[in-house]
Amino acid sequence: MTLLKSADLQNQSGLDVRLACRSGTFTGPTAGLCPAYVQANLIVLPAKYADDFRGLCRRNPTSCPLLGENRAPGDVRLQQHLAEDSDIRRDAPGYNVYRDGKIFKQNVHDVSEYWEEDSVAFLIGCSFSFEQALTANGLIPRHQLLGRNVPMYKTNVPLCPSGVFGGNTVVSMRPYKVEDIERVRDITRPYIATHGEPVAWGAEAAARLGIANILEPEFGEAPVIEADEVPVFWACGVTPQLVLMSSPAAQGISIGHAPGGMVCLDMKVEDMLAAS
Amino acid sequence: MTLLKSADLQNQSGLDVRLACRSGTFTGPTAGLCPAYVQANLIVLPAKYADDFRGLCRRNPTSCPLLGENRAPGDVRLQQHLAEDSDIRRDAPGYNVYRDGKIFKQNVHDVSEYWEEDSVAFLIGCSFSFEQALTANGLIPRHQLLGRNVPMYKTNVPLCPSGVFGGNTVVSMRPYKVEDIERVRDITRPYIATHGEPVAWGAEAAARLGIANILEPEFGEAPVIEADEVPVFWACGVTPQLVLMSSPAAQGISIGHAPGGMVCLDMKVEDMLAAS
Repeated sequence: MTLLKSADLQNQSGLDVRLACRSGTFTGPTAGLCPAYVQANLIVLPAKYADDFRGLCRRNPTSCPLLGENRAPGDVRLQQHLAEDSDIRRDAPGYNVYRDGKIFKQNVHDVSEYWEEDSVAFLIGCSFSFEQALTANGLIPRHQLLGRNVPMYKTNVPLCPSGVFGGNTVVSMRPYKVEDIERVRDITRPYIATHGEPVAWGAEAAARLGIANILEPEFGEAPVIEADEVPVFWACGVTPQLVLMSSPAAQGISIGHAPGGMVCLDMKVEDMLAAS
Repeated sequence: MTLLKSADLQNQSGLDVRLACRSGTFTGPTAGLCPAYVQANLIVLPAKYADDFRGLCRRNPTSCPLLGENRAPGDVRLQQHLAEDSDIRRDAPGYNVYRDGKIFKQNVHDVSEYWEEDSVAFLIGCSFSFEQALTANGLIPRHQLLGRNVPMYKTNVPLCPSGVFGGNTVVSMRPYKVEDIERVRDITRPYIATHGEPVAWGAEAAARLGIANILEPEFGEAPVIEADEVPVFWACGVTPQLVLMSSPAAQGISIGHAPGGMVCLDMKVEDMLAAS
């Protein structure tokens, strides 16, 4: 079987990417793929925790913007406003599997054996959508120019807990010149279903968020920040995965997408913006 | 003119309380009044800041749960799902008026002279609703037993900013025994439109929130905490008033209700719960 490269899927639809994942011919990162379509973070939980997780998303929509779910507990298809033809056990390029909040399988390509008859899948907005808008306005995120994954950091900013779930916010970081920040805020503000405008920026922002060393992110790859730039931080869709690892009361098997390999939806970015 | 006391309005409707405020016969605190009806915090802003404020509420719904607005900019009537017969310039028992984020009039009873043709009124959920549920379950909040206002504190937990608006979360505090906390969480969780379950609790919670002295709240009155109790903190509807004072970019006249004197709505608590 010949594996596809990201370049082979650049101008395809969300369905094309899902079918390539499902057939096992694509296992790579989804950054830059099917740019007209919304990409999403994935969390799969046993049904007994579904209401607590929905509450977490409602109380913390900036870091955990819930786009939708599967059609019913155990149903492998996503709700139709997300994707028509879907099998959430195989439609992401890779998955991490957690037991009692600890990863025990990384970058699995098919999670059918961990799918339960009451599994609930949650699709959470992702920053790829607003990154395209920044790029279209000449404000290309640095990590894209470097061909790296975006740097992500744990913060000391607590989420509003919900039932068994709690933890702290994770942020992603893109450096910009101070004079560009208001434009960066304006461009990303409408993307309210995919984290929206930044949560913090400026020379003191990392310290305020409790980030000890900006050059050592907990997730993704190290940044390059020029002398005339400051860090700009957005709430990040990795937050719910850290929540799984910070919530000892939530027991059993849960599943997340492998970082960088999102679920590509039929939902178009322009429709998501219009509905916001 | 004879002023009414709170006791005179205890079993009345939200409309009764509004009419008493409007006629100038009631200027007192609304705690315990018209218990079947939702009470709300009020913020009035010039229309040019309305979208930024809506964004603030969407990004921070736990501290700023937006219940609704006036029918159109400048219209003194609230949206019909909030109240049928209403004049938001006179229907709260008292108002504070801000200029450029600083209070310059306190406990005014009629703000007609500050009402502009583009004024937008925002109604924000208030904790009185879930306090009734705690009381009904035998967990009467201490400040009610003492006949005091609830203690409220500034925290170091940043809100997700939106346009010109930003600042930190304000929390209210009610002490409970450790063994009662899970029940307190369960009882208040459904009140998602009025702050919902607590955001923090326990012996270390005050320090985590950046509260230096639990006996010296910034708003309300000092608490009494027994030796076998720990503080339990909820996100608080005073947050948007602190936002006004923390957002120098927002200029001009804004209006809030006077603390403790809420806008009583026609919306019933049971209907709000069913819609959540």
